[in-house]
Amino acid sequence: MRFPRRTSLFVTAIVAAACGGEAANVPPEPPPATATAASAPAPAPSAPKKEEAQLQLAESDEGMWTLDRFPTERVAKLHGWGPTKEWLDRIRPRAVKIALGCSGSIVSSSGLVMTNHHCVADCVGQLSKKGRDYLAQGFYAKTEGEELKCPDYEIDQLASVTDVTSRIEAATKGAAESEFVAKQRAAMGAIEKECTTGEGVRCDVITLYNGGQYQLYKYRRFTDVRLVLAPERAAAFFGGDPDNFNFPRYDFDVSFVRLYDGNKPVKTDERFRFSATGPKQGEPIFITGHPYTTQRLFTVSRLEFARDVELPESQRQAAEVRAMLLEYGKKNAEAKRIAEILLFDIENAIKVYAGKFQALSDKEFFAKKVKDEQALRNYVASHPDLQKTVGDPWEAIARSQVELRNIFVAYKMLEATPNHSTLLQLARHLVRAAEETSKPNAERLREYSEAKLPALKEELFSTAPIYDELEARLIEQKLLWMRGALGPDDPAVQHALGKDAPEQLAAALVRGTKLKDVKVRKALLEGGKAAIEKSTDPLIQYVRRTDADARAVRKIYEEKVEGVVKKNGELVGRAHFAAYGQTTYPDATATLRVAFGEVKGWDERGKPVNPITNFGGMYERHTGKEPFALPKRWLDAKGKLNASTPFNFSSTHDIIGGNSGSPVIDKEGEIVGIVFDGNIHSLGGSYGYDPKNNRSVSLHSAALLEGLDKVYGASRILAEIKQ
Amino acid sequence: MRFPRRTSLFVTAIVAAACGGEAANVPPEPPPATATAASAPAPAPSAPKKEEAQLQLAESDEGMWTLDRFPTERVAKLHGWGPTKEWLDRIRPRAVKIALGCSGSIVSSSGLVMTNHHCVADCVGQLSKKGRDYLAQGFYAKTEGEELKCPDYEIDQLASVTDVTSRIEAATKGAAESEFVAKQRAAMGAIEKECTTGEGVRCDVITLYNGGQYQLYKYRRFTDVRLVLAPERAAAFFGGDPDNFNFPRYDFDVSFVRLYDGNKPVKTDERFRFSATGPKQGEPIFITGHPYTTQRLFTVSRLEFARDVELPESQRQAAEVRAMLLEYGKKNAEAKRIAEILLFDIENAIKVYAGKFQALSDKEFFAKKVKDEQALRNYVASHPDLQKTVGDPWEAIARSQVELRNIFVAYKMLEATPNHSTLLQLARHLVRAAEETSKPNAERLREYSEAKLPALKEELFSTAPIYDELEARLIEQKLLWMRGALGPDDPAVQHALGKDAPEQLAAALVRGTKLKDVKVRKALLEGGKAAIEKSTDPLIQYVRRTDADARAVRKIYEEKVEGVVKKNGELVGRAHFAAYGQTTYPDATATLRVAFGEVKGWDERGKPVNPITNFGGMYERHTGKEPFALPKRWLDAKGKLNASTPFNFSSTHDIIGGNSGSPVIDKEGEIVGIVFDGNIHSLGGSYGYDPKNNRSVSLHSAALLEGLDKVYGASRILAEIKQ
Repeated sequence: MRFPRRTSLFVTAIVAAACGGEAANVPPEPPPATATAASAPAPAPSAPKKEEAQLQLAESDEGMWTLDRFPTERVAKLHGWGPTKEWLDRIRPRAVKIALGCSGSIVSSSGLVMTNHHCVADCVGQLSKKGRDYLAQGFYAKTEGEELKCPDYEIDQLASVTDVTSRIEAATKGAAESEFVAKQRAAMGAIEKECTTGEGVRCDVITLYNGGQYQLYKYRRFTDVRLVLAPERAAAFFGGDPDNFNFPRYDFDVSFVRLYDGNKPVKTDERFRFSATGPKQGEPIFITGHPYTTQRLFTVSRLEFARDVELPESQRQAAEVRAMLLEYGKKNAEAKRIAEILLFDIENAIKVYAGKFQALSDKEFFAKKVKDEQALRNYVASHPDLQKTVGDPWEAIARSQVELRNIFVAYKMLEATPNHSTLLQLARHLVRAAEETSKPNAERLREYSEAKLPALKEELFSTAPIYDELEARLIEQKLLWMRGALGPDDPAVQHALGKDAPEQLAAALVRGTKLKDVKVRKALLEGGKAAIEKSTDPLIQYVRRTDADARAVRKIYEEKVEGVVKKNGELVGRAHFAAYGQTTYPDATATLRVAFGEVKGWDERGKPVNPITNFGGMYERHTGKEPFALPKRWLDAKGKLNASTPFNFSSTHDIIGGNSGSPVIDKEGEIVGIVFDGNIHSLGGSYGYDPKNNRSVSLHSAALLEGLDKVYGASRILAEIKQ
Repeated sequence: MRFPRRTSLFVTAIVAAACGGEAANVPPEPPPATATAASAPAPAPSAPKKEEAQLQLAESDEGMWTLDRFPTERVAKLHGWGPTKEWLDRIRPRAVKIALGCSGSIVSSSGLVMTNHHCVADCVGQLSKKGRDYLAQGFYAKTEGEELKCPDYEIDQLASVTDVTSRIEAATKGAAESEFVAKQRAAMGAIEKECTTGEGVRCDVITLYNGGQYQLYKYRRFTDVRLVLAPERAAAFFGGDPDNFNFPRYDFDVSFVRLYDGNKPVKTDERFRFSATGPKQGEPIFITGHPYTTQRLFTVSRLEFARDVELPESQRQAAEVRAMLLEYGKKNAEAKRIAEILLFDIENAIKVYAGKFQALSDKEFFAKKVKDEQALRNYVASHPDLQKTVGDPWEAIARSQVELRNIFVAYKMLEATPNHSTLLQLARHLVRAAEETSKPNAERLREYSEAKLPALKEELFSTAPIYDELEARLIEQKLLWMRGALGPDDPAVQHALGKDAPEQLAAALVRGTKLKDVKVRKALLEGGKAAIEKSTDPLIQYVRRTDADARAVRKIYEEKVEGVVKKNGELVGRAHFAAYGQTTYPDATATLRVAFGEVKGWDERGKPVNPITNFGGMYERHTGKEPFALPKRWLDAKGKLNASTPFNFSSTHDIIGGNSGSPVIDKEGEIVGIVFDGNIHSLGGSYGYDPKNNRSVSLHSAALLEGLDKVYGASRILAEIKQ
């Protein structure tokens, strides 16, 4: 569930942008071109009438539903009450998106936003320095004046949703697989550019239903976000990595930030209030947030690729980063502090990969995926009209996956492996931005299109601290992987290393670069191609001499893999629409969704797991040794806290990474909790929902309010949210 | 191909002893009870006559053949000449086994043994210390008096092979799956005990043909082994990890040790001589050595387990050890030296795992395994008599693999994960030896049976240095994995950690233990159970409080997995015998084998690879940066060496880890090279031989002799081997 940026980059690069998030499908007839703001469900075009459908979604709490196709009747049938359109409309602007890959909720009329501690931990770490470690000590601004701006943080509030399916389809109509990505990218870029009227606006064209629908999401964009309250990480993440994705849990994983505009807190009426009681057993409750990505419509050949190639490799890399960071942190306290900023994300990623791999390695689970796909293919085969339009996209996608196996190592090593090194990432952005912004918008790599530039600048001009020695380690690791995977004789490796060894080259690049200085980065971005070509900065020169290789493999990837997957993915989506009717939900795409369910435990190895923990259990679990060591503030408060106050709870909601920080709300629309994790079985949720075992994990509102009061003495915040 | 001890432990624990090496099969009628010394092929009992066989081994250089069933006719047909029985008999005592998992050859009448540098690197590292780094500087004893005893090294010379199939079978006849392992272990222990007449004898009962045959291998055992010559690791392993398992190669991977007995060099007539020319193109050449383990008879369900569960987990763990060691080594030069001793094995293991995983993830390769198994099952189904005796062992084994998936995490974490920590390994041996040696031989864990005690003592009383800080790191890693995999609430984890954290506990165990002192270990071993129970050593106490959990999961493993696999593996073996006839080879089991073939390249991504490199190519590859930095001695010798001398060559031989150090010999029985590696495609050789791509990699005898002369000035050695 934890999903801070670096992890999301990790997944984005390999799973989502690369393979998943934007796979596409063309419905036979386009929905109306500009059906605004999800006001009415877009008709699923010319799909067979529902009576004809032979395949059905099982009845359970499955689904990350868009607000425009919410299954109100189904929820009412399962839980006795279902949200109305008005209820859903009220939620929409209050549930905000945190750009690094989390969710949040507006909880006061002065722009106070609640999210998880682990969703602001990057900011907390960036505001810390030697001797002032807010991750260890916690942070609380007693006055508005003490609130500290996060160096690099963006929160987006949904303003409107517009259907743009027809424009995207028109652009790719008749396109070959090899040109599909470029044409679609150009159309998306144009739409986003039109929409982005200033730095305070964010516009994203989103692929839904595997390409059955394209929508333009327009957000109000806030980049002046200030830290208000963050507990000690030891309380927010009590139990640490061992307890992560496990339950019972005892985590105070909540923090508060505030939206500013023109140097003043943002005033708004769109805010949630807190429930006086928290969730009642058996009542329907809802989680509204931004699940990042799922791969439930992946064909079997793509799942095989994930299982056989991608996930093992990602696990291995992440495990190496973890081990390096653990050892690096033993040097001294400051090294430990620095290492832990990244360690947290890496350990989380390792568990996510492991959970996903475990799901795909489960023979029963995989057999069900194979069976489901066969059922859909049989359905197509038995409907001649459908067969005629759909053909055999499964076979085409399977061929693309063979191609992907051939190029994967090069693609991952040269283009898609995450740059845990901030400096390397900055250097690549600068070199590519200079090149790309000199082209027409339609021809640019998608991340340098006009509409994406504000976010890019935010990243490039961030004042977050950069730690030289750790940067060198991260670059060295990347170079070692590259040489190991491609071999020392590969031309791309030779362009990167020359006659140097990874350790020496990485050290020299970091020693020589001036990119730590924001002014230098500004000058290079403003100077464009000429400035980049003239630059003697060794990191800029490194990226310049290696970028052609990276771009070359990306081009092959886009033409032979991504294009095939997108074009044929649209056809799979069409078949899916036809077989399952309109009442299904799209794969997660980092857009606003609502999940429904109730507080509930499950059976673990035959034993029932109680769905609710309390403060007393937390104190029992305290050993005094990390990560089971409570901070002093909590130990001191023991006498003041009610041991039986409900603390964390598990519930049946279908959520995934990116949902972190989502409010849990009751039918009154009041907050009864904040979700921060899932149980270990939820990790297979990328590929499917298992109603028996998949559980989300939340901080209960009663513990939240009591902790703010009795542990943190946060009277200013409590007054504000109760106002 | 590289296979020093730690790696072999790794594989032994998980793949071989656990699952592979000893899987068993009962032939319908036992061969004669004591057919001595492989003098005649044991008849494959009551298998259908060869004419009936419907399935055939493909004609290629496939096979790691035992000397008693060598396919002379087949080799003659393929290569124009095949070894006679006399030729094979001559080889037998000259090709020695290096107990840590390598091969060697006796090359002088004064007990000089040639093997790979990487097969003595452990010893070279152990003889080094701060400021005297023989791995970096190389080692050459100019006189016999300067030869240094390896602290912990054993070489075994094969004396006889005796068939013991009937005794083993009689012991397990009618045994249930759950008692199969215990009964077989007792029978093996008894036979080995009878045979082991002193510390200078080693006896191993070996399972061949998946249990189609059991043989007793009796060796003359040498434990006074002294280092004579070892080049700099930078020359032996030029190109390092990036070039490992790749070709073209330029490695001087050879070293010499000497067998001593009674403090004098061993005198023997059983020795190889060197060829004057090296291998001629197209002539048949042979590799005779001790391949450690292959899994070619694994059923599909076992291969799936390896692919889906075991290999990814092993890769992840090894990757973490590597990253830790790399970071640890950055502290200072001494830390780097210490880290590199283990790093070398770990990096090698990572490549081995990756290669095996890649083979099993290859859909075409796996499909062939599935097809082969189906063909065998069809064969059985179409032969009613065979069907009646064999039944459906595939199904039974598949069920055991489901069980294995359930217990694997606990089994691996508590019992089978390698103890890279020497101290932890010593502590476990001491605690278990005290317990086990108090039982009758037949009831002991196999590694503590009477026959195994000499080797155990060799390990326990080794004077090899132990490095506290690194030991603590390795124990901490193991504890972190355990807690991560089983969760902090698992009883076994609580027994291990109590209220401690891994970092603190590991540090305290290493700080407090006295086991570094050989005298303390001797006293504990001699003191038996009483001494162990009285011991206040924290490591001994740690093992005592955790051993019941480890033994419990081992018991489940033996009864529900290993027993099922062995019992039913025998039946698969019987079917295999029936279908393929007697002219097949058994899976590798660390026993003497002969592989045949010729010098040959292959096509890599469509381009032909030249099978022979030369000294000139090595100098071209030198960059001056590790691992492409030649040692000074080689740079100085450049003018004296002939640039066109053949250096390394690739050949078609079917070998695997454990073959490292094997002599390559021509039809005269003369040495033309020494094998040290395979190409990247050879790693899938665990599961099958691919004649198109699988190649072994050897050091050419011409380069070997020229290097000894002109680079090392090793006139004493040259005189001895030419004598």
